[in-house]
Amino acid sequence: MFGFENMKISSSDAANPVINLDQGDPTAFQEYWMSMTMKERCVVVIPGWDLMSYFSDKTNVCWFLRQDLAEAIKALHRAIGNAATEERYIVVGNGSSQLCQAALFALSSLSEDKPLSIVAAVPYYSTYEEEASYVQSQLYKWEGDARTFNKPGPYIEIVTSPNNPDGTIREPVVNRGGKVIYDFAYYWPHYTPITHRQDHDIMLFTFSKIAGHAGSRIGWALVKDIEVAKKMVQYLTINSIGVSKESQIRATVILNELTKSCRIKSESFFEYGNEKVKTRWESLRWVVDKTGDTFTLPDYPQAFCNFFGKSSSTYPAFAWLGCNEDKDLESLLKEKYVLTRGGERCGSDKKYVRVNMLGPNKDFEDFLNRLLTIKYPNCFEEIPCFEP
Amino acid sequence: MFGFENMKISSSDAANPVINLDQGDPTAFQEYWMSMTMKERCVVVIPGWDLMSYFSDKTNVCWFLRQDLAEAIKALHRAIGNAATEERYIVVGNGSSQLCQAALFALSSLSEDKPLSIVAAVPYYSTYEEEASYVQSQLYKWEGDARTFNKPGPYIEIVTSPNNPDGTIREPVVNRGGKVIYDFAYYWPHYTPITHRQDHDIMLFTFSKIAGHAGSRIGWALVKDIEVAKKMVQYLTINSIGVSKESQIRATVILNELTKSCRIKSESFFEYGNEKVKTRWESLRWVVDKTGDTFTLPDYPQAFCNFFGKSSSTYPAFAWLGCNEDKDLESLLKEKYVLTRGGERCGSDKKYVRVNMLGPNKDFEDFLNRLLTIKYPNCFEEIPCFEP
Repeated sequence: MFGFENMKISSSDAANPVINLDQGDPTAFQEYWMSMTMKERCVVVIPGWDLMSYFSDKTNVCWFLRQDLAEAIKALHRAIGNAATEERYIVVGNGSSQLCQAALFALSSLSEDKPLSIVAAVPYYSTYEEEASYVQSQLYKWEGDARTFNKPGPYIEIVTSPNNPDGTIREPVVNRGGKVIYDFAYYWPHYTPITHRQDHDIMLFTFSKIAGHAGSRIGWALVKDIEVAKKMVQYLTINSIGVSKESQIRATVILNELTKSCRIKSESFFEYGNEKVKTRWESLRWVVDKTGDTFTLPDYPQAFCNFFGKSSSTYPAFAWLGCNEDKDLESLLKEKYVLTRGGERCGSDKKYVRVNMLGPNKDFEDFLNRLLTIKYPNCFEEIPCFEP
Repeated sequence: MFGFENMKISSSDAANPVINLDQGDPTAFQEYWMSMTMKERCVVVIPGWDLMSYFSDKTNVCWFLRQDLAEAIKALHRAIGNAATEERYIVVGNGSSQLCQAALFALSSLSEDKPLSIVAAVPYYSTYEEEASYVQSQLYKWEGDARTFNKPGPYIEIVTSPNNPDGTIREPVVNRGGKVIYDFAYYWPHYTPITHRQDHDIMLFTFSKIAGHAGSRIGWALVKDIEVAKKMVQYLTINSIGVSKESQIRATVILNELTKSCRIKSESFFEYGNEKVKTRWESLRWVVDKTGDTFTLPDYPQAFCNFFGKSSSTYPAFAWLGCNEDKDLESLLKEKYVLTRGGERCGSDKKYVRVNMLGPNKDFEDFLNRLLTIKYPNCFEEIPCFEP
């Protein structure tokens, strides 16, 4: 949850302002859109008389989805090769959070057994627990860690790959014939090698984490079964009578630009984005190494990326930082005025935190410096600049 | 619900295309925004690098609300005099539907007794029943008609005034100390006399029904109690991580234009809108009179409108059309390829239907003609043009 209660740290001051790396605000990529090459592109102009209707296409299952957005989504997936779009319904949502809830509603409404158990392997995206619990639905029930789940009967497993918070490549773990919702928010080539084209019944994507446009609140689901798609649309219809047309127009323009940019290496967003997150990870690993055995970070295997045509590693949008001693790392970082998401919220241990890797440059640099000072209180060592 | 299954009427043809007056798509007002005076105004230009963050103002209870939208909302309410905005929290939503659900969540979460009963006086907006039922929450339970509600204990009454579907001016009917959510979607001077400034704990408004921008999915709540506002924001945070920034920017520009237009009678949207709905109502009443005692329409009292400075009647955004015989009016109209919302869905009788009064001119004219042919099958009478 985006709760700001914990931001009121009394003794932060001008020299040590609070750095919020709790939420995954992806503003790091703004510099790409402000570059000389891009600044004049992707400008959206909307006259006062446009986009007034609730409807986009009454003949489409997802009647509020603009056809041009659907085409832009399919074109980008084709260019990247990360997901199959053929013979699927596209459902647009106010971010993929709303679509995840729409999928829970759809699958449980269509199930004979209720409440349907919802699970995800630890550590999981903390918001899943909130999404599955907050309205106390009788359709489904949050059951926590998929690895220890042993209730008989139907269930839904949410699989995020690369995983939020720890960046690992994931597959379902229950494997007892239940339904699976795949969250592929981070299955894009700047974050992880595109090893194959994902091809599942329900796949979620979000505009927020591709090129950083979180403010638009656009997500989409690729759904095989028309009955599931219809039920998801029913959820979105009752919940918010569809999705902002302004955001859909803007997402269309930007997704089309991303697709185009793939053709020119020097302009490619994904080349840029990959360099950006890679260098941040190198800086973070340098600092973690420097602190000896104080902190831990996951290691990620190399894999061949079909998109880049070369082998590379995963550079997740979040760092899953741990400490080797049995400490409360979230509190430890809070003493340095750095806000992160404690591991317990992700079903894991308080010795871990989730750290947003996509914040502004200054916040990221300050975070690295404060991390160093946990080990070396009087350290003023210059952190090498890995920025490209 | 926006279900399009019922649109597949097999025998509609080019001469008799289906007219959909079921949903309240408010496209009638588009001509105002396309007029010579307005066409070049209210153009919104958004560069690719803008509006990327989830956040608008981290110090605000509603952290995703843009400050300029909050100011535009307050300025318009001040200009119209329809609602008190002082000492209130503004919560922005993806339409007022999402805000209504946020309010149900907030009030029931804060209540000791659960599930909280939800009621509305018949005939009610059919979507309330869906909103209060679809996820089968254990926090609240739809209990139907407020007039026959006699369960002891706390409850929430939803009061819509002017009412959707029948346009009546409403007050709470249970009056046993429960919570009230006021839906003032239609408390604007083109629809009804502004007799006083509404001043309640929770008041909902929607951008869709003011000047017709339904595609933007913007609504707002004026909320007195900070704890209720916080819980509503919690709902919106988990449900959709806030509200499209593009839509907020556009709503800001258009609401500011509406406020400005109040100062120049010839440009005033509310003068224009009032003429528009008034002439449509005059045409409809002419047709209903012409059909003798076949159909019924509610009568609305005159009242002094503080905004226009004169006495006037209510011209609702929906017509609550009845038939004097005990017929299924929705089916009767469907035979004429006119889709409306049957009275039973509003907790009332099938002899009534809700008819959208804000559709395109052509659809409205065709609807009137087909209504006449129910009484006079071979009638080709010219309906007088009441258009201004």
